Amino acid sequence: MSADIVKPSILPGFMELTPQDQILFNKMMDTIRANYEKFGFLPIDTPLIEKAEVLLAKGGGETEKQIYRFQKGDTDMALRFDLTVPLARYVAQHYSELSFPFRRYHIGKVYRGERNQKGRFREFYQCDIDIIGNGTLDIVNDAELPSIIYSTFKELGFDAFTIKINNRKVLNGFLKSLNIEDSTYVLRAIDKLDKIGVEGVEKELNNLNLEDNIINSIKEFISIDGTNKEIIERLEKLDIDNEVFKVGLEELKTVVKYIGLFGVPEGNYKIDLSIARGLDYYTGTVYETFLNDYPSIGSICSGGRYDNLATYYTKQKLPGVGVSIGLTRLFYQLKEANLIKSEDSSLTKALVIPMEGCLEKGIEIINRLREEGIFSQIYLEKGKISKKFSYADKLGIPYVIVVGQDEIEKGEYTLRDMKTGEQQSMCVEELINKLK
Amino acid sequence: MSADIVKPSILPGFMELTPQDQILFNKMMDTIRANYEKFGFLPIDTPLIEKAEVLLAKGGGETEKQIYRFQKGDTDMALRFDLTVPLARYVAQHYSELSFPFRRYHIGKVYRGERNQKGRFREFYQCDIDIIGNGTLDIVNDAELPSIIYSTFKELGFDAFTIKINNRKVLNGFLKSLNIEDSTYVLRAIDKLDKIGVEGVEKELNNLNLEDNIINSIKEFISIDGTNKEIIERLEKLDIDNEVFKVGLEELKTVVKYIGLFGVPEGNYKIDLSIARGLDYYTGTVYETFLNDYPSIGSICSGGRYDNLATYYTKQKLPGVGVSIGLTRLFYQLKEANLIKSEDSSLTKALVIPMEGCLEKGIEIINRLREEGIFSQIYLEKGKISKKFSYADKLGIPYVIVVGQDEIEKGEYTLRDMKTGEQQSMCVEELINKLK
Repeated sequence: MSADIVKPSILPGFMELTPQDQILFNKMMDTIRANYEKFGFLPIDTPLIEKAEVLLAKGGGETEKQIYRFQKGDTDMALRFDLTVPLARYVAQHYSELSFPFRRYHIGKVYRGERNQKGRFREFYQCDIDIIGNGTLDIVNDAELPSIIYSTFKELGFDAFTIKINNRKVLNGFLKSLNIEDSTYVLRAIDKLDKIGVEGVEKELNNLNLEDNIINSIKEFISIDGTNKEIIERLEKLDIDNEVFKVGLEELKTVVKYIGLFGVPEGNYKIDLSIARGLDYYTGTVYETFLNDYPSIGSICSGGRYDNLATYYTKQKLPGVGVSIGLTRLFYQLKEANLIKSEDSSLTKALVIPMEGCLEKGIEIINRLREEGIFSQIYLEKGKISKKFSYADKLGIPYVIVVGQDEIEKGEYTLRDMKTGEQQSMCVEELINKLK
Repeated sequence: MSADIVKPSILPGFMELTPQDQILFNKMMDTIRANYEKFGFLPIDTPLIEKAEVLLAKGGGETEKQIYRFQKGDTDMALRFDLTVPLARYVAQHYSELSFPFRRYHIGKVYRGERNQKGRFREFYQCDIDIIGNGTLDIVNDAELPSIIYSTFKELGFDAFTIKINNRKVLNGFLKSLNIEDSTYVLRAIDKLDKIGVEGVEKELNNLNLEDNIINSIKEFISIDGTNKEIIERLEKLDIDNEVFKVGLEELKTVVKYIGLFGVPEGNYKIDLSIARGLDYYTGTVYETFLNDYPSIGSICSGGRYDNLATYYTKQKLPGVGVSIGLTRLFYQLKEANLIKSEDSSLTKALVIPMEGCLEKGIEIINRLREEGIFSQIYLEKGKISKKFSYADKLGIPYVIVVGQDEIEKGEYTLRDMKTGEQQSMCVEELINKLK
């Protein structure tokens, strides 16, 4: 039976890495997970396929267009497009089994049938943490999250990043003081400050038919800058007399104070009054995180506070606060910016190469290495020694151990450092000490 | 806006765990992954959605019926139903970038729209390893895989398990000696020995219209028992004079010899001539693994050798050998057999409970614990102390640290062991030493 050959390829918009890059990707994911666990978050793992009626309970908008939805038999199902809707469903469904505040982390793939575009993915990993309260959730939680972001990105190897903080109530209260009741479109315009500058925002506000003095006030407001302390003083001096603004300002002050107490250095967090977050379910604190030297990458970790997680699935009031790292996009961007290097990503420490007739001794040695927890491989194929060295080289395996007749007689084996080319003779216990 | 409430539920046939069980599930997954990496396997992660023409290149059979297949725009796509087809596609597609023998592991979810049945899942994790050769692959690789199975299940906490080994060429050669050319249906019958016993197999063979003396020979053959050495001696004495049988027997002898050299104790592996593996792509060594005390769970790790991985995608000859652990089903079965206990699964070591007015000191302490890498949480909500203790209790957090006014003055904090109820006063450094 000679089969026709199907061209081996994947769909556009899906990321697939070489094993070397996959190792680096997994390391990032492990670091994120370890940090989430360090801060007391519990793992959940929900089905990728859910009932369409559940995923689309909120309905409308881009979601409905982008979702992968299909039938099998009579069942109408779809792939999840984020981890927040499954969380809402999970908490509502398992409400009586959970302890609140419920701190959960979830690292998994989500699906969006977006227009095909460089750097946009249709399948991507999200790494989410959320803290869900039962009825209430203390504002200090909003201050702990930035310390998790800080700890995570520090351990990922970054120093120069800024967690930008704002509060939707501050924005809404301010807009209310200008008699703007429906703030959605104004917030969307403000949110673009980063990308389109003050003039761009002004243009967008003009399109909304706002009066000039209103536009000027907004421009002035989102341009307030300085240290966190200075910004808060400026906000206090505005003396805006509405309840929403006052509550928001109190919250922002508390959050900023406690972020410091949770150990985030002053240089790594900053109030930014232009951060609005387009998503309409945020109701208080909002966050975005930027790499200082690569602002064009955009926010690498975003989130905020919401009043009620699961309105579509339960009558329980479940306020929460959370952030998310879009790992697939982040990895792609870091790679593009040359901040991730694929060399030296090998997990395997040593390749044992047995010469002809020395296989049994080779196996004896690899057994010992693995007993000691040393990640290692034995080369079992026949062929030229040069090919075997080149195999180690291509995989970035740092050490090769040659097991030949001479070596066996001496009880000492040749350890070659593949980077320097240096060779040493060692007995098995010395090999283990060296590789451990 | 008061939304209608959608009942929060998931589709039947999907596993969703409590956070406590998820921690245990993840621990098993971590152990499997760590063992795969220790033996020099490289990770890959392929899209869950692939082109339907790629996934169904082989076509036919159960696969086509069970697959989740759907269109979006003009694109015909489907969810992967195993990790082997994506591996074949991956190796064919990235052939020139890979180094052979290519050792890859892949842990991920796969999808099969099976009939709904207790203990059968439509979404489940597979944990696969395969070694792919370029043109050839030494038989000794077939002996290394059982040592990985052994190492993995040992570390998962099992002792009494048996890796059953057979060789398809031995079976095929034997059947050929009986003049049975198309062995597929006979092999399927033999493969059921475990489940239906010798009489059951006899019945199935009768249905295939085989003569009685042939059926007797098959029965005798699959009943050959003894030590590995004895079984091989019996096979040699059969003196079957065909090339397929001879090659198979040589392979089996080599594999059994080297499994021992790779350090698997004699008690944990055994030739079993009834192991055939229904899948038609196996061509040599085949494996199944059973828990001695729970045979009804069925095989917990299976696989084998195949001549050519990727016939549907490339003309390159790519022989390989691999095994797979079906983790979702395994976890479910272990849980059903009461071999997995959800208590004490907490990752979090300590819960810091600050009394009123002591929040800042509480944060100072939690910062120190986390700096030292101690997984810990601070309770930030207001409420009765008893409720806070009960929170730690429900989550199985082993220690609570109470931070009150008295404690702050003394510089010593109350550490409560939640299991014994024992309390001790300690300064922060002592807390750290105790919890580390």
